[in-house]
Amino acid sequence: MIDRHLPAGRITADDKEFYKRLSGEAAKGVAVLSTTHRGRDYAATVTDYLSVSFDPPTMLVSVYSLSRLAEAIESAGRWSLSLLSSDQTAVADGLGEPGTPLIGLLDQVPHSRPEASSPAIVDGALAWFELRTVASFDAATHTIFVGEVDWMGRPAAHHPRPLVRFRSSYS
Amino acid sequence: MIDRHLPAGRITADDKEFYKRLSGEAAKGVAVLSTTHRGRDYAATVTDYLSVSFDPPTMLVSVYSLSRLAEAIESAGRWSLSLLSSDQTAVADGLGEPGTPLIGLLDQVPHSRPEASSPAIVDGALAWFELRTVASFDAATHTIFVGEVDWMGRPAAHHPRPLVRFRSSYS
Repeated sequence: MIDRHLPAGRITADDKEFYKRLSGEAAKGVAVLSTTHRGRDYAATVTDYLSVSFDPPTMLVSVYSLSRLAEAIESAGRWSLSLLSSDQTAVADGLGEPGTPLIGLLDQVPHSRPEASSPAIVDGALAWFELRTVASFDAATHTIFVGEVDWMGRPAAHHPRPLVRFRSSYS
Repeated sequence: MIDRHLPAGRITADDKEFYKRLSGEAAKGVAVLSTTHRGRDYAATVTDYLSVSFDPPTMLVSVYSLSRLAEAIESAGRWSLSLLSSDQTAVADGLGEPGTPLIGLLDQVPHSRPEASSPAIVDGALAWFELRTVASFDAATHTIFVGEVDWMGRPAAHHPRPLVRFRSSYS
């Protein structure tokens, strides 16, 4: 057993590095988070989201507070999650780089919109959800957006497998 | 494409059922959430947790607000997450039934504790984290507990695979 105690308020760079590795032991389904603000699309590959409730259908996503995406979601109040299938690693990689230019962001990613004003949904996703922010709060470096589902859908035929990230790799 | 619009405030039982199926398309690493309150262990299999920040190491978990586990976490202010490996389906099943009696809950689950007063950690987990609640908030039927990591660890040898849930099955 390799373990480490973190005394509150005295956390070292080594502690953070160890936590980064350990938190990578959590397997996560990969999704694309997207929003539209002032006619511009924002999108990024994410794994930090979850379903919170069935009643009403509610999800949350955790986004780095200083990112353009967090600012855009905050302003737009409307966002989408597209759950990627195992053959969409190219999409995940394409939208997974921090600092990707916004212009032409979705040019290489086939997508559609439930309504003209909706955030983009990635075609071929296992399932997608369009959400309306009902609450948000800050937690350390991140903002947690809680949203109620306004639209949701899936392809007519089920894709057999999800795209999963584990220890920084896809499986 | 099969999709569905949810008009706010007019959500039907059918809508919730459809959401339940669609949210099952999110692949999730399986973990055991545990706390100790007044000398008694509380534990359940969960998938609704995530790492929020590296600085300071922070995680959150979403728990049904009316559950005994949520009450115990609220009172104890201290909880743990053990990320299960692919050979721990028996642990996941054993702690995954709602309404499991509390008495003897962990008798069949090999576990240990970083300190005598710590919540239980499941032996053989890919990684584990002990957290101290720093914030909590309600979202629909659930309570989101945000915690900072006080202890964390992993076995000396890496287990090759995580336990993942997808469409109500393990893989």
